[in-house]
Amino acid sequence: MAGIAQKLASNQKQVAISEFFEKNKHFLGFDSLARSLITAVKEAVDNALDACEEARILPTIRIQISKIDVKKDIIRLVVEDNGPGIPQKSIEKVFGQLLFGSRFHAIRQSRGQQGIGITGVVMYCQLTTGRTTHVRSKIATEPTAAVVDIGLDTRKNKATKANAGREIWYQEDGSSKEHGTEITAEMKAKYQKGRQSVWQYLRMTSIVNPHAEITFIDPEGVKHHWNRVTERLPTKVESIKPHPHGIELGQLQRMVSESKDLNLNHFLLNNFSGVTNRARKELCKAAELEGTRKMKTIKGDDIRHLLEAFQGERLCDGSPAKLLKPPTNCLSPIEEMLIKKGLSKTIDSRFVTTLTRVPSVTQGNPFQVEVGLIFGGSMASDKPVEVLRFANRVPLMYQQGGCLLTKAIESVDWRQYGLEQAGGKGVPKGPAAILVHLASTNVQFTSEAKEALADNGEVMEEARKAMLEMGRGLRKHLEKKKKMAKTKEKFELINDILPAIAEKSAHILDRPVPELAGSITKIMSAVICESTTVWNKETKQTDVEITLFNYTSRVRAYTILATWPEKAGAKIIGNDTGGRKEALGVWAWKLDALQPGEQVKINYSLTGLERGDWTETEILFRGSQDVIGATKMDEKFLEEIRRQEKLQSEEVVVEDSSATGEVAQEAIPEPVVAAPEGQRTLFGGDA
Amino acid sequence: MAGIAQKLASNQKQVAISEFFEKNKHFLGFDSLARSLITAVKEAVDNALDACEEARILPTIRIQISKIDVKKDIIRLVVEDNGPGIPQKSIEKVFGQLLFGSRFHAIRQSRGQQGIGITGVVMYCQLTTGRTTHVRSKIATEPTAAVVDIGLDTRKNKATKANAGREIWYQEDGSSKEHGTEITAEMKAKYQKGRQSVWQYLRMTSIVNPHAEITFIDPEGVKHHWNRVTERLPTKVESIKPHPHGIELGQLQRMVSESKDLNLNHFLLNNFSGVTNRARKELCKAAELEGTRKMKTIKGDDIRHLLEAFQGERLCDGSPAKLLKPPTNCLSPIEEMLIKKGLSKTIDSRFVTTLTRVPSVTQGNPFQVEVGLIFGGSMASDKPVEVLRFANRVPLMYQQGGCLLTKAIESVDWRQYGLEQAGGKGVPKGPAAILVHLASTNVQFTSEAKEALADNGEVMEEARKAMLEMGRGLRKHLEKKKKMAKTKEKFELINDILPAIAEKSAHILDRPVPELAGSITKIMSAVICESTTVWNKETKQTDVEITLFNYTSRVRAYTILATWPEKAGAKIIGNDTGGRKEALGVWAWKLDALQPGEQVKINYSLTGLERGDWTETEILFRGSQDVIGATKMDEKFLEEIRRQEKLQSEEVVVEDSSATGEVAQEAIPEPVVAAPEGQRTLFGGDA
Repeated sequence: MAGIAQKLASNQKQVAISEFFEKNKHFLGFDSLARSLITAVKEAVDNALDACEEARILPTIRIQISKIDVKKDIIRLVVEDNGPGIPQKSIEKVFGQLLFGSRFHAIRQSRGQQGIGITGVVMYCQLTTGRTTHVRSKIATEPTAAVVDIGLDTRKNKATKANAGREIWYQEDGSSKEHGTEITAEMKAKYQKGRQSVWQYLRMTSIVNPHAEITFIDPEGVKHHWNRVTERLPTKVESIKPHPHGIELGQLQRMVSESKDLNLNHFLLNNFSGVTNRARKELCKAAELEGTRKMKTIKGDDIRHLLEAFQGERLCDGSPAKLLKPPTNCLSPIEEMLIKKGLSKTIDSRFVTTLTRVPSVTQGNPFQVEVGLIFGGSMASDKPVEVLRFANRVPLMYQQGGCLLTKAIESVDWRQYGLEQAGGKGVPKGPAAILVHLASTNVQFTSEAKEALADNGEVMEEARKAMLEMGRGLRKHLEKKKKMAKTKEKFELINDILPAIAEKSAHILDRPVPELAGSITKIMSAVICESTTVWNKETKQTDVEITLFNYTSRVRAYTILATWPEKAGAKIIGNDTGGRKEALGVWAWKLDALQPGEQVKINYSLTGLERGDWTETEILFRGSQDVIGATKMDEKFLEEIRRQEKLQSEEVVVEDSSATGEVAQEAIPEPVVAAPEGQRTLFGGDA
Repeated sequence: MAGIAQKLASNQKQVAISEFFEKNKHFLGFDSLARSLITAVKEAVDNALDACEEARILPTIRIQISKIDVKKDIIRLVVEDNGPGIPQKSIEKVFGQLLFGSRFHAIRQSRGQQGIGITGVVMYCQLTTGRTTHVRSKIATEPTAAVVDIGLDTRKNKATKANAGREIWYQEDGSSKEHGTEITAEMKAKYQKGRQSVWQYLRMTSIVNPHAEITFIDPEGVKHHWNRVTERLPTKVESIKPHPHGIELGQLQRMVSESKDLNLNHFLLNNFSGVTNRARKELCKAAELEGTRKMKTIKGDDIRHLLEAFQGERLCDGSPAKLLKPPTNCLSPIEEMLIKKGLSKTIDSRFVTTLTRVPSVTQGNPFQVEVGLIFGGSMASDKPVEVLRFANRVPLMYQQGGCLLTKAIESVDWRQYGLEQAGGKGVPKGPAAILVHLASTNVQFTSEAKEALADNGEVMEEARKAMLEMGRGLRKHLEKKKKMAKTKEKFELINDILPAIAEKSAHILDRPVPELAGSITKIMSAVICESTTVWNKETKQTDVEITLFNYTSRVRAYTILATWPEKAGAKIIGNDTGGRKEALGVWAWKLDALQPGEQVKINYSLTGLERGDWTETEILFRGSQDVIGATKMDEKFLEEIRRQEKLQSEEVVVEDSSATGEVAQEAIPEPVVAAPEGQRTLFGGDA
């Protein structure tokens, strides 16, 4: 026994982070040969998209995969982008040093964050093939590109470099490239097709990055191309400061001890988001600290009290200090219209609904959930629905079962919304695909491979609410479809068979055929609305036609309302029926009295849209008798529209505030945290 | 555009590993308040068990949880062990520095490996409560214990220490403690009961660590105790050298460049397991390298050729170099008997079967799968079976769905083995629990929190085979039970009703009651075997009684065979019927001719076992007529027994070899990799 403790202790030593990840390369997504290739593509493409977005460049990315040695599974991957490029002296650190990067401490939405991804690729290549990764990068201000071969000294977590130099970067057309980065990596990997493949990864990436142009040349030399479908770059995101609600005690202690601020007042105003001058005063009062206290005198219990004031556990004049919500200009959602566009282009279907919820906050981090659902078309109806998961515009392709986003889908009883689901739990079955995207300043993954989201109550709740909302849209669509089908059947029956019977009877009895219009109307006894929303190839417009039939025996008067994607910039033209704008994205027509047996048509077109943007128009009505094929306009719907309008105007304020800085943040009237209500899928095609 | 690349690059900096894990604390298992507490307990208990095992001490561990501040969710955790203790100067590094430890480079089975766990706990405490962790540790060679408060400078990944000192460690009974470690940590956490709780974690730990004594005092002051059920420490594991089959090119390059060996011959013999002198010669020849080459002259293509020789891609005299399998003394499985004991003690059931497969190898790492299945008793039959997952004797409590071990269970069509399962996929339903344990020198988890195993083809295959084998045992058990029940019913019917009818008829007809024995035998027309295996409290023995009934009209002769846990050290006593040992763990009795209507009994007892060790005896027979309640002894069964015997003798060789080093390894006749056949559950209670 004697000496065993010393003996055991003598073997202990420090391990470098690079040794750790080399041994645990599966943490980084390098667990099988097939997945390793996808991981490598993913890291390179993520970096390219992030760099382009930060430099406000519309990304054009080219990925080429070739088989170098089929027997030994050696593959060469080349990824080229038109990003801003990397200055020569930074290249080695970016590619050859783990945990080196610019985004770790920044609080804003980005794909990469840790500074692990691409270095992991370099490390994996070196480990499996012994080869370095060739990097070529050109920045706009220099005439030539820097080239260098990068490896990794894993014992020290330092880059090794060889063959460094400069060259003119000629492009295919002979011109020299202005700016961009290209990596050439050789690794042990397997190229596969199917549900988990490079192709599928790029296809999903293109859905949520409609501003990117992606070209992929597979090992057989086949060229796959995903077009840029919008010229609009994602909203520019700004880094924000941490919000007091998300601060832990240990973090606050460190911030205080490292502070270079003059005093507590400056400390509070300079280092946090959501702290106005008034909030600063209230925080000091609640924490019982003088604002003029020098930072180095603030210790121990002072910091504890300050944290308690942050968390509303200490009151100022009987209530917690009033903090603003964190600004949401650190987030860049895809937005409903683009999700819809991406989905309808990629998967053939009958019905699409999308929904972007308002931003919310968890542990001081702003986040936003977006969902989309497509239904019908050629999808299989006896299989589980396809789940498309995304985080900060990056597709998640593995660990579906262990992901928070999947759990949110599984937690909904989809049977009430018209999908099959054993026991009301789990992924539902049916001809549908569900898309869910989390945009967040701090996406919490279950591991460094960033393939599944870790549990988080608030994110779960938001995602679930979005699902429920979307489910209601689906149910409405299915019910309406059913009702319409029934009415149509009845109508056809009556219109075809009744006259036939009448004619036959008249013939047999040798009497004149009776007038049936009255009888038919009596039997139908309904007002029916039919609408079509069709893309017009020639005019490049979306044509909408709404028809209202009065199959009742009385005169009817209605106001008919229709939704249109005003928010996305669409304009109504050729609307000869007139009417007026009722609210954001809702047009209204007050119709004259409609006589029994009469019908009326409303026609107009929408401009400013592309094909697939708008495929169904929701029709609403005001009036005493129900209209089959339209929804009654009620207070709830109106409230939602008003809320939407209000949000729209708030968003404008936020955008302004990002320019002028902190003071303007005060203009944001209510904290997002206090608005947990679901947001209605106003522009979803659930009509 | 100009300057954007420089601007982006200027924000880049190096992040410390501790900053990384502080931000991503959920990677380490600190994602919710409830889970954080379980993670803290787990890390402390894992360390205690590992230290005790390495120092060959029977562990006695005490865990106490108290609520310090209910409103703010502050909890104090104290974990005390009787391990070897930690020398004073090592304490700060062990507890206050990430990636510091002794097991990272060692190739052998251990619970902890990365040097992250306990430092993660210290970091979490500091972050959430601002408090340091108090450590007290005493080693046997010093008279007093070292005490110190440990924190973490996350910017530098260095420990901070305060209040360091020495004290006499008084125990409850007033004596001073000889050796051990105690940590007192205060953290933001929630104590919960239920399926994912500290209690459940400790209960599961006690199942797979039957040599540990664990006491848990919960926040209400209630004491929970799990006794030590065996005095036998787990087999001592030895570190092994890497096996050539698991080497990657990058790793070999580093080994070559860092080598201090005289020449290639020494390099090959000194740094790898499985390389005999003959293998060394063959490897050199295949790689076309002189064994006397100095290491510093070996570069580039030489290393590539050496690797290809390792992988059998380069041949020596027409065939790959013959490598031995890696030694398996680096593994310490729980072993069938102890799994069975743990399971039957913890869960009430009717049927238990366990199975330890022979060690196998993946990527040069030896591993071994063990499984257990319990069925019946008070478990719910309409719920999914309980899945108990373990890796290196540590319970896995989260991410069940994403774990390789669960996937192995889900991949089996359990319907054919008598359990319900929708579509023959997924976790089956039924009154059962399935235990699966992976022992490995390199357990690949999906993340640092070590809650789920990452995908690996070979491990999956082994786990699946174990499941299939166990499933067959379950089916046999259920079929036998059904058959026995049917026969018994028939028997009772005939034995009760027939005489009653006969009597009644005789009475009515006023004639004598007829002799029915002959008729009954004729109707039954079966030989039936019944056996009981019962623990005798007084004698501390397991009493077995086997009864054979001949309900046929002919004379019958049989050899009856019974299994007993010879491998686990049990002895047969009081066996008056004589017989002889047929094979390892199989006894045989040649019975005299059994007359129609006769019965014969075999009685004996087993010593050297404890209660719950052996609850069912498998009965086999040799003879022409089938015996209900026994299995026909066939060639397949015998082959399995012989294989078992052979393995048993091989194991002895392996154990010897570990003492004398490499040369003796040559005595191991066949590589484990070449023995993929399932191992029969000889000692499982599937009789």
